[in-house]
Amino acid sequence: MASSAKTLATCIFCKIVKGEIPSFKLIETETTYSFLDINPLAKGHSLVISKYHAEKLHELPDESLTDILRIAKQIAVATGAENYNILQNNGRIAHQEVDHVHFHVIPKPSTSDTEGLVVGWPQQKVALDELAKIHEEIKGKL
Amino acid sequence: MASSAKTLATCIFCKIVKGEIPSFKLIETETTYSFLDINPLAKGHSLVISKYHAEKLHELPDESLTDILRIAKQIAVATGAENYNILQNNGRIAHQEVDHVHFHVIPKPSTSDTEGLVVGWPQQKVALDELAKIHEEIKGKL
Ligand SMILES: [Zn+2]
Ligand SMILES: [Zn+2]
Repeated sequence: MASSAKTLATCIFCKIVKGEIPSFKLIETETTYSFLDINPLAKGHSLVISKYHAEKLHELPDESLTDILRIAKQIAVATGAENYNILQNNGRIAHQEVDHVHFHVIPKPSTSDTEGLVVGWPQQKVALDELAKIHEEIKGKL
Repeated sequence: MASSAKTLATCIFCKIVKGEIPSFKLIETETTYSFLDINPLAKGHSLVISKYHAEKLHELPDESLTDILRIAKQIAVATGAENYNILQNNGRIAHQEVDHVHFHVIPKPSTSDTEGLVVGWPQQKVALDELAKIHEEIKGKL
């Protein structure tokens, strides 16, 4: 079925998938594994990871992507959270701490900055003709 | 194939999907639509949305979820960003501004807090036996 998963012997998330490091496992499928984050931002904070080892999202084969959101959704429901964030970080400056693709499911129980994800949103004003140029540029690479 | 998409006449993202409001469209599939965010946090900031109208992730049928990450990945590659965040917010207190499920693809060009997503991470210390209890509680609802 799935292509044999690529793993990295020194990667802690690969070790969790293989059971070499214990985890509070939630759901496992052929391509995907999920478990509680042990340093949560809020109660129920969980991680959904691909079994295939890749550092960043764009390095994952498409067949490693199909289950992830379905499982994130199931976990979100099970936490009972009404408000929550789904977050996947790529690169140290984008707040990635473990170099194996992982999706956070983070309940946001209140407006407090001491629970759940804290989001800063430095919105830019960009002229429409500038956006049109960026649009052409990106479309040209799709 | 796909179940007929549910739409909401007053929703701006449903209007974008139907072409009633113009957008800088990127990729469209049977279940999914993507376009540039016109108030970007960084150059190339894009949105990937389900055509099916739902306010929050857990309200989307599974068949509306399958294309989203594949498309987010394609867009991330096309922006040329080495570092980026994938973010999907559920609920006003979790920073959701439009009540139609959307995934942000946000390039993070530098460590600057004036470009790209700004992330705050109020990590909690939780005892293992407390995590074990939370684990049982969530597993019981899966
Ligand atoms: Zn790994
Ligand atoms: Zn809508």
